[in-house]
Amino acid sequence: MGVLVQNLKFDANGLIPAIVQDAETKAVLMMAWMNADSLQRTVETGETWFWSRSRGELWHKGETSSNVQKVVELRYDCDGDTLLVLVNPAGPACHTGEYSCFYRVLAG
Amino acid sequence: MGVLVQNLKFDANGLIPAIVQDAETKAVLMMAWMNADSLQRTVETGETWFWSRSRGELWHKGETSSNVQKVVELRYDCDGDTLLVLVNPAGPACHTGEYSCFYRVLAG
Repeated sequence: MGVLVQNLKFDANGLIPAIVQDAETKAVLMMAWMNADSLQRTVETGETWFWSRSRGELWHKGETSSNVQKVVELRYDCDGDTLLVLVNPAGPACHTGEYSCFYRVLAG
Repeated sequence: MGVLVQNLKFDANGLIPAIVQDAETKAVLMMAWMNADSLQRTVETGETWFWSRSRGELWHKGETSSNVQKVVELRYDCDGDTLLVLVNPAGPACHTGEYSCFYRVLAG
């Protein structure tokens, strides 16, 4: 993990944004934040873990809903300050029950 | 725009993360930040505008590279704190010349 984390830039709060994309449909499901610990757990368990900024705690996606996300691939961007996590989701990504958190159109 | 912005939560710096996805291939191209002004310009011009945190200025994607991104649809997530911008890109999204900024695999 040390080697992996060296390629990444965490922000002043020790966080990095993680975009979660369905590996099959390619839909963007959600965006959440990881710290080094949640990233390590994600890599070790093969399921997504995040840092909940509102609750101030590690958050295993699907812990209560059972809608875990199996990690297929973990990518990072040119600046090393954003992650892209390709997953196979066991169910809806959104707490509203929607498949993707991006279910609303602002314009277009 | 006032109505649109009311649905959104900008962070303490007045910024909101914007995930840019190719409307056709569904590839995630990049993640950048918008403030209310860049969002307004994006909606008005139909091309992506961001706020460059490093340069501290508005940034019209493709201004120097000509690789503008035509906006197909603008979506926002359940919390209203992340944008998803579906685009038709005129060329590579990444300053390295790569089609997507997420061209490197961290694990998987």
